[in-house]
Amino acid sequence: MLINHAKRADDANYKFDAIIRSLLDTDFYKFLMLQFIWKDFKDVPVTFSFINRTSSIKIGTMIDEEILRKQLDHVRSLRFTESELIWLAGNKFYGYRDIFAPEFIEWLRFFEMPPYELEHQDGQWVLHFSGDWVHTSMWEIYALSIINELRTRAAFQNMNEFELDIFYARAKSKLWDKIDRLRGIRGLNFTDFGTRRRHSFLWQDYVVQALKAQLPGIFMGTSNVLLAMRHDLEAKGTNAHELPMVLAALSRLNMMPCDLKETQYEVLRIWQKSYGGALLMMLSDTWGTTQFLRDAPDWATDWTGLRVDSKDPATAGEEYITWLQSRGRDPKGKLLLFSDGLDVDDIIRLYAQFGGEIQPGFSPQDFTGPEDFLNPKKWLHKPRIRVSFGWGTLLTNDFRDCHPRKLQAFEPLSLICKVSEVCGHPAVKLSDNYLKATGSQEEIEFYRMLFGTDGMSNLPVLV
Amino acid sequence: MLINHAKRADDANYKFDAIIRSLLDTDFYKFLMLQFIWKDFKDVPVTFSFINRTSSIKIGTMIDEEILRKQLDHVRSLRFTESELIWLAGNKFYGYRDIFAPEFIEWLRFFEMPPYELEHQDGQWVLHFSGDWVHTSMWEIYALSIINELRTRAAFQNMNEFELDIFYARAKSKLWDKIDRLRGIRGLNFTDFGTRRRHSFLWQDYVVQALKAQLPGIFMGTSNVLLAMRHDLEAKGTNAHELPMVLAALSRLNMMPCDLKETQYEVLRIWQKSYGGALLMMLSDTWGTTQFLRDAPDWATDWTGLRVDSKDPATAGEEYITWLQSRGRDPKGKLLLFSDGLDVDDIIRLYAQFGGEIQPGFSPQDFTGPEDFLNPKKWLHKPRIRVSFGWGTLLTNDFRDCHPRKLQAFEPLSLICKVSEVCGHPAVKLSDNYLKATGSQEEIEFYRMLFGTDGMSNLPVLV
Repeated sequence: MLINHAKRADDANYKFDAIIRSLLDTDFYKFLMLQFIWKDFKDVPVTFSFINRTSSIKIGTMIDEEILRKQLDHVRSLRFTESELIWLAGNKFYGYRDIFAPEFIEWLRFFEMPPYELEHQDGQWVLHFSGDWVHTSMWEIYALSIINELRTRAAFQNMNEFELDIFYARAKSKLWDKIDRLRGIRGLNFTDFGTRRRHSFLWQDYVVQALKAQLPGIFMGTSNVLLAMRHDLEAKGTNAHELPMVLAALSRLNMMPCDLKETQYEVLRIWQKSYGGALLMMLSDTWGTTQFLRDAPDWATDWTGLRVDSKDPATAGEEYITWLQSRGRDPKGKLLLFSDGLDVDDIIRLYAQFGGEIQPGFSPQDFTGPEDFLNPKKWLHKPRIRVSFGWGTLLTNDFRDCHPRKLQAFEPLSLICKVSEVCGHPAVKLSDNYLKATGSQEEIEFYRMLFGTDGMSNLPVLV
Repeated sequence: MLINHAKRADDANYKFDAIIRSLLDTDFYKFLMLQFIWKDFKDVPVTFSFINRTSSIKIGTMIDEEILRKQLDHVRSLRFTESELIWLAGNKFYGYRDIFAPEFIEWLRFFEMPPYELEHQDGQWVLHFSGDWVHTSMWEIYALSIINELRTRAAFQNMNEFELDIFYARAKSKLWDKIDRLRGIRGLNFTDFGTRRRHSFLWQDYVVQALKAQLPGIFMGTSNVLLAMRHDLEAKGTNAHELPMVLAALSRLNMMPCDLKETQYEVLRIWQKSYGGALLMMLSDTWGTTQFLRDAPDWATDWTGLRVDSKDPATAGEEYITWLQSRGRDPKGKLLLFSDGLDVDDIIRLYAQFGGEIQPGFSPQDFTGPEDFLNPKKWLHKPRIRVSFGWGTLLTNDFRDCHPRKLQAFEPLSLICKVSEVCGHPAVKLSDNYLKATGSQEEIEFYRMLFGTDGMSNLPVLV
């Protein structure tokens, strides 16, 4: 067998295996939001902070500080390449060309990541990114992908070659079983939202290629811009909590000509100046979905759809449909996008509930695979509303029960990176799930007083 | 990424991928039998014939004649290498050195495979190997491995890269689940007997390496001589049906100074002139185990053990123990080797039954994994007899349910290659299972009249 001597020598030289190798290796919505910020909120000083919601896992003891610093420093050395900028400028997104202003693309040419502050406390990483919003915002996905992949690598330390081989064989079998559960479900579609909590870049790359090959018409694209570019897929995603969080904090500091409660709609007003069509997706849960819908101005019903992120998804979906009907709108033209900790069972049940009509005598729990959707006594393909799914962690990081020695070293962690301060003042998210609130306790109380807690509850947070 | 240009060019040059690349890529018992034949029966003219017992599968239509000929011709071009002969001569087998006479090793130096006759009939291959026994005998394993692997390759034709990837991932997961079922069962041991019906050489190589790494103390070695040499494992196996079959046919032709019924013991008499200890394993089912044990001379109870190959294994094991006791021998020093179509469930149940004492209220069916052997209310590690397992097809070729499109293209086939003629006269095997008898129908009837059919039955033949 011929040896590739150069490769072998290079392997032996091995020093550093960069996790983020392109600034496009992030979620597409970051670019849409970045242009939003760049237009009107460029210089707002904010801090993003890394939080491990799975606090029982001491992530700080698993990952060597020097290695984490090297990975973060490497991201700071990256620049957008000419080809990447040409692709961003020239590609169609959600059917639209020229979504990004030429001046924004020119600005990206000189973009570089700002510094970070890293400390170690009680076995956890204390990791903050402070600076102007238009730079710090980009750390969210890079930091999360890096920490997740370093945790993967740490868990590999005690596994030999055969164990790694069977570990991936099992994960592939699991992935394929999921694919088989969805193959052939009429009208179903979903998107990969798994960048931030992926097992590794190369695994997400594998998953995306497998889905593209195996589920045409069902797999609609990926939130990962680099993978979308490489594999000629749709880049997907719209906006996130950081927009209302920062605007609300600015209002609280009297730096916005707008009431705090109004900022959640002010975000939409500003957003629709730049974007239209399928990009008009409301994220309603920053301060609670129930109050958001109840108090929303009528023009909000013109928006294309709702992304459900922290409420029990079946409940939230019904709430959105009822709201549309109460405002005299037909849900059939609207879109429900589910994106919170989904696995294949959730996707199938939610699709049964919203993507058609479940027939009398059956409930969503009776749906487990394609065959259930082919029986007209059980289900009719009469969509109540357009439905889609943003499938994240359990698509790109489901290695549960794959460890050959049955260790729990690869259970998904709930790692997040959220805006924590605006102009030195705490930023807050309430969310529909009490356990997913972020911010200082006093400030959370203030927001809860203001927005109320209608429709909020405690749900388990898996990822 | 650096490309290995030489490899890429070589891949593009791809013409022929040899299946058998060494004359050691065969079962060890072939060498023990070859020396037996070489000493006393060198020039006996025999024919070995290939038979597809799974006649519903038209193996002749799946495999291109030219490709089959190329593979068989390639085996004819092989010679034992110097290193291989040194290993055969210098290695310990079953604890013994110098098992092979120096003259035999010298004779092997000039060994080459004899011609074959290949025809195509009703969708099946008609494949005969005629010549002196000491050469034709060696075709059995090479021919079977070649046809099995060509069938594998044929089934790959319509699978794309992702499908192949998931196919192997699933097979690895299955293999690992089997390993996990056996890990930690006290006193258990087994051997790979899967050369002839393997999926491919490289897969058997993978399986053997996985077992060596994962089941130390339980995985005792392989029947494959090349893999034993490469991976420093024990080469295992003793003798097969061809010995009594040929000697019986010679007796029927009055070419042996021995009654036909006596030839089954004459084989043992000649064998023990060359071999001793653990190599004294009786294969009792050529004409039926019940008559073999009943009529056996008392010195046969000195032999180390019995290999069970075609009878219901639990029944055959009890029969052997009863026989030993009736002849005043203690079974505890003897060895039961099960070798017929085993899978992990059979191994666990048979080990429960013979490798210890099942406690009142339980039966072999209640044993499924290691935990069952740790409960002293269920099982005591007091071996009734020494037990071992020769695990074949379902170790090295279990790809059932691995096909991503659920095709049945990889179900194991029951392919055999048996001595069919001796000096132009039909050779016969009756076996304990009516369905596994081989030979002309008239001749089978004659042998059944002579040996009787005590203890024979119909059992499903999976592999």
